Amino acid sequence: MNKDATEEQIGTITKKLQDFGHGVNISRGTSRIVIGAIGDESKLAPELFDSLPGVEYSMHIVKQYKIVSRESQTTDSVIDVSGIPIGGQQIQVIGGPCSVETQEQMDLSAQFVAAAECRLMRGGAFKPRTSPYTFQGKGKDGLTIFRRAASKYNLPIVTELMDVRMLDTFLEHDVDIIQIGTRNMQNFDLLKEVGRISKPVILKRGLSATISEWLMAAEYIAAGGNHNIIFCERGIRTFETAYRNVMDVTCIPVLKRETHLPVIVDPSHAGGKSWMVPALARAAIAAGADGLLIEMHPNPCEAWCDADQALNPQELKDLMASLKGIAGVIGRTI
Amino acid sequence: MNKDATEEQIGTITKKLQDFGHGVNISRGTSRIVIGAIGDESKLAPELFDSLPGVEYSMHIVKQYKIVSRESQTTDSVIDVSGIPIGGQQIQVIGGPCSVETQEQMDLSAQFVAAAECRLMRGGAFKPRTSPYTFQGKGKDGLTIFRRAASKYNLPIVTELMDVRMLDTFLEHDVDIIQIGTRNMQNFDLLKEVGRISKPVILKRGLSATISEWLMAAEYIAAGGNHNIIFCERGIRTFETAYRNVMDVTCIPVLKRETHLPVIVDPSHAGGKSWMVPALARAAIAAGADGLLIEMHPNPCEAWCDADQALNPQELKDLMASLKGIAGVIGRTI
Amino acid sequence: MNKDATEEQIGTITKKLQDFGHGVNISRGTSRIVIGAIGDESKLAPELFDSLPGVEYSMHIVKQYKIVSRESQTTDSVIDVSGIPIGGQQIQVIGGPCSVETQEQMDLSAQFVAAAECRLMRGGAFKPRTSPYTFQGKGKDGLTIFRRAASKYNLPIVTELMDVRMLDTFLEHDVDIIQIGTRNMQNFDLLKEVGRISKPVILKRGLSATISEWLMAAEYIAAGGNHNIIFCERGIRTFETAYRNVMDVTCIPVLKRETHLPVIVDPSHAGGKSWMVPALARAAIAAGADGLLIEMHPNPCEAWCDADQALNPQELKDLMASLKGIAGVIGRTI
Amino acid sequence: MNKDATEEQIGTITKKLQDFGHGVNISRGTSRIVIGAIGDESKLAPELFDSLPGVEYSMHIVKQYKIVSRESQTTDSVIDVSGIPIGGQQIQVIGGPCSVETQEQMDLSAQFVAAAECRLMRGGAFKPRTSPYTFQGKGKDGLTIFRRAASKYNLPIVTELMDVRMLDTFLEHDVDIIQIGTRNMQNFDLLKEVGRISKPVILKRGLSATISEWLMAAEYIAAGGNHNIIFCERGIRTFETAYRNVMDVTCIPVLKRETHLPVIVDPSHAGGKSWMVPALARAAIAAGADGLLIEMHPNPCEAWCDADQALNPQELKDLMASLKGIAGVIGRTI
Repeated sequence: MNKDATEEQIGTITKKLQDFGHGVNISRGTSRIVIGAIGDESKLAPELFDSLPGVEYSMHIVKQYKIVSRESQTTDSVIDVSGIPIGGQQIQVIGGPCSVETQEQMDLSAQFVAAAECRLMRGGAFKPRTSPYTFQGKGKDGLTIFRRAASKYNLPIVTELMDVRMLDTFLEHDVDIIQIGTRNMQNFDLLKEVGRISKPVILKRGLSATISEWLMAAEYIAAGGNHNIIFCERGIRTFETAYRNVMDVTCIPVLKRETHLPVIVDPSHAGGKSWMVPALARAAIAAGADGLLIEMHPNPCEAWCDADQALNPQELKDLMASLKGIAGVIGRTI
Repeated sequence: MNKDATEEQIGTITKKLQDFGHGVNISRGTSRIVIGAIGDESKLAPELFDSLPGVEYSMHIVKQYKIVSRESQTTDSVIDVSGIPIGGQQIQVIGGPCSVETQEQMDLSAQFVAAAECRLMRGGAFKPRTSPYTFQGKGKDGLTIFRRAASKYNLPIVTELMDVRMLDTFLEHDVDIIQIGTRNMQNFDLLKEVGRISKPVILKRGLSATISEWLMAAEYIAAGGNHNIIFCERGIRTFETAYRNVMDVTCIPVLKRETHLPVIVDPSHAGGKSWMVPALARAAIAAGADGLLIEMHPNPCEAWCDADQALNPQELKDLMASLKGIAGVIGRTI
Repeated sequence: MNKDATEEQIGTITKKLQDFGHGVNISRGTSRIVIGAIGDESKLAPELFDSLPGVEYSMHIVKQYKIVSRESQTTDSVIDVSGIPIGGQQIQVIGGPCSVETQEQMDLSAQFVAAAECRLMRGGAFKPRTSPYTFQGKGKDGLTIFRRAASKYNLPIVTELMDVRMLDTFLEHDVDIIQIGTRNMQNFDLLKEVGRISKPVILKRGLSATISEWLMAAEYIAAGGNHNIIFCERGIRTFETAYRNVMDVTCIPVLKRETHLPVIVDPSHAGGKSWMVPALARAAIAAGADGLLIEMHPNPCEAWCDADQALNPQELKDLMASLKGIAGVIGRTI
Repeated sequence: MNKDATEEQIGTITKKLQDFGHGVNISRGTSRIVIGAIGDESKLAPELFDSLPGVEYSMHIVKQYKIVSRESQTTDSVIDVSGIPIGGQQIQVIGGPCSVETQEQMDLSAQFVAAAECRLMRGGAFKPRTSPYTFQGKGKDGLTIFRRAASKYNLPIVTELMDVRMLDTFLEHDVDIIQIGTRNMQNFDLLKEVGRISKPVILKRGLSATISEWLMAAEYIAAGGNHNIIFCERGIRTFETAYRNVMDVTCIPVLKRETHLPVIVDPSHAGGKSWMVPALARAAIAAGADGLLIEMHPNPCEAWCDADQALNPQELKDLMASLKGIAGVIGRTI
């Protein structure tokens, strides 16, 4: 309460809290009076109090996410992706091209991904592009091509779902992990729909989403019953223009403290240039990430999109070697 | 090209440009060589060149938005919303509550909106909430309640569409302007769908969307055939924590220069507190905005959401008076 | 305290607070225990408690600025600048070029500033330039030139102090307002020095300074005894690249609520282009600013620095007319 | 030039460039005309052209930093700090407390720093504090105490210079590396002064400084003759509030490409909490940093400032072990 809050104003707040079924603790300090609500905070919204006379500001003490919180489950969740564990002692690197182009390109990609000892494969059939005039992805045909290529090498597949009406198509194509992209992190209807199934979901962080908003987006999925959620940091938007985004390595230890769910990182989108990827990938693993999404293209210069951020097959292989070294230092394997 | 680019590398770039059907201009400077592509830029992606040997960086010279650009149409577009013009000499203030609660609340709201001489009404039936555990809106019933209340006072209505599957329902309820919210500014499937109809669309700016991305999002709608687009600035995300968002007043003159489409501002969401709204609303009009979205609730302290940002009916009326004064100073009316 | 904090941990915190001379209030909620310190908060630092066992987080309840706070003085401060009031009913526009170039240029500038009915003049003799290889200002000679030109038209002068060793030189040249620039907002030794004199100080906001840090920077000046402080918003750094900075119009009503000191705005530096200045200047006045810093050059195309952001004399005159109109609408004069 | 630029306008630009002594290349494209200046770009400022009729925008092609650029020197610079190399194959960890408190505290700190096998020591005698009412550092006495403690263990010392008038005092106390803090990155007079001596300088990145501005700040020092410059990333300011700053790991590979000078990282200030430090420190080394600044206090809970971000002696020792492992993986030593 403001310094000059009257007893009547304090009484109004007190009564309102009690009407919501809460107990009240009043602490009279030297220059402020603090009114504490005792009970289930989630039933109260601070803005219901902020506009009342005498109130300086009101806030939640307890965080609003529940199912995904570390408080609700102290042990790490390990998500089973068609037999491959994500979130445990073993780190997973998910390799593959930005977008599905042709059967040949995907066959080659799958071969190189497997050869680099990655255990899962990525590729986009539906592409969220800034411009309506650029390549929008191969669509359903892309899913078919991708599924066929990956199955030859027993690689579970990860691909992005943008349109809620496409969910059944994804399930029919046996997509192993559904990716919710950066621009859809708060597409709540999409989150609710993937919450109703049991497929693992990679939830990418919004370009300027706070940790708290990200955890709440995951809570939307979890609240529907699907707890197979994997967080993916992919760079945040800042003032810096020398690179596309800033890979937020700090979010890794913070998320590991706030949630029991796995955290992976996409260094390819974060930096936006292939020559930055090895440094960023190593940093992510050193900071405790449970996995990586890395773009690799059989022939980067010919890629149909984001050609400048894909590693070539040899670069991916070399990177895997140093990542294994770092994993070993911190007691993990790849 | 890099300082040390070879003639062979220059030749490779030149050939690649020619293969795309472009002419080439080579400018040999003191410390760099600049290769210019002559032809339709939109067919070229800078990243196709960035990773080639000898290239320092590549960029577009021409902006990628076309239909929405001022270059394509020098006169201002005036959008006709059920008889009310948006984008012309007359400024429009769209008032109403954050969310539809009850028929009585909406009837009262409509009465006060009309009494304040606003010509359109806002209200949310589907609410994008950060938490899955808070009020998500009244849904379809909310649309019915809203339509009924507004029609009594001949107020065209604005309400947010979150889920592409709800578009038909919006059309059945005669929603006059479909609002695409901040979190969905780059929900491309949703943009494509509202691009296929002819209803006016308010396209809110994403929390950290650049002007260029925003214009490209509008281009998605326009490319489908719907040119009835209204931009709405609603505050951007920055480092500042003393207020919810920073209302970006600079975007108003910049958009008026870049596009022929109308630009309105939502000062209620930008600041997040009702006491900031009058100052922000006045600033937006003084900077050249074509309209405002303002939250007003018959009884703000009882509002079901965002209670602290709604004006009460008298505050809205008082604000309208000073806005009229400012409009007059810059040769417009409200 | 954490959900699982022990009684012993609570006791440790309690004892530590009591050792600092504070009373203690313990509120036991459903899922957290809140310990309130009763007494002078400024003696406690939250980080002294954050690392103790059982603590979830600790925070100040009361703001840390005192002399500059609205709480310490409810009436607006009006700063007397050699007879011109800043912060009262009358709005002040401070016009002039980015930098002092020649006596002729400054004489002409002063003439045009006075002709536009501005009552104070700006001009830089020491220029903070990003590159060491660009024009760094005319230095002491610039002060002499500036003083001479402005005195002919009875214009008090504003100019930037970058180096603490130059303070005496500024005083010898009768600089009427000392400007502390954006890059020096937290140059604490410079703040302390201008705190020891009584000359009015314009304190520009740091590029990414929060409102709280800005008020604390002013508090450094005020704590030394100089209460003649004028805040100047000049655009903040964000992700947007379409314009130099984002003019933060929201900070105007917020500062007017948090401090009794005047708030002015520099729309020229905020936008970075002269064609944006009129819209931004009008917005600032409409939002409640007490004044403006506006760049005007007798011949912008020939200016030695920031040529693209200066108005020409006629543009300044035209702008003043519309600003007077807006001032009238909100009950002020210019 | 704009699409509608006239031949006369093109002629004006051409003439202006020629007057500056530049050659001109004109490329006439489909929808724009590009005029290239051939000659020394650093003599031209884009803003001199931006306001001329017909110009759409103008820009530099070549970067403005010279001495510090990788282009000017392709081999890595190794800075000799009283016998300890920074920037070579060996990684340096600089440990020590946030601030100098007492002789005993510094003696103990030096002992633990040496015991952890760090080869340099940090500690602040002059502290830049947000509030004027908090501990401002021990000042000159602090330097004496620090020097004495570090010399017992042959540790070169790093400490922050805030006030240009203190430079001689720093030299008298044999400070081995002068640190320029975040808030002073663009305090150009301070940069010029440390440019006139030959002592190694750690240049911390400003809270929201771009890579380009940071390199230009170093160029200020280098232009004075002092090339012993070490960049130090310490976290940037973003929208995120869950941690103090975001450690920008991407800047490491980018700086290593843009400059030949060493790059170190301060994970303690970046995260703001001691429990984040190990993850961030490992990430920085994995990404290619040449060293670290790490806060260690003999008894963190009793530290006079930033108590929550210092490691205790054992934590530093443990961290060094894992850092050595990571250094080994990437072919370096610690």
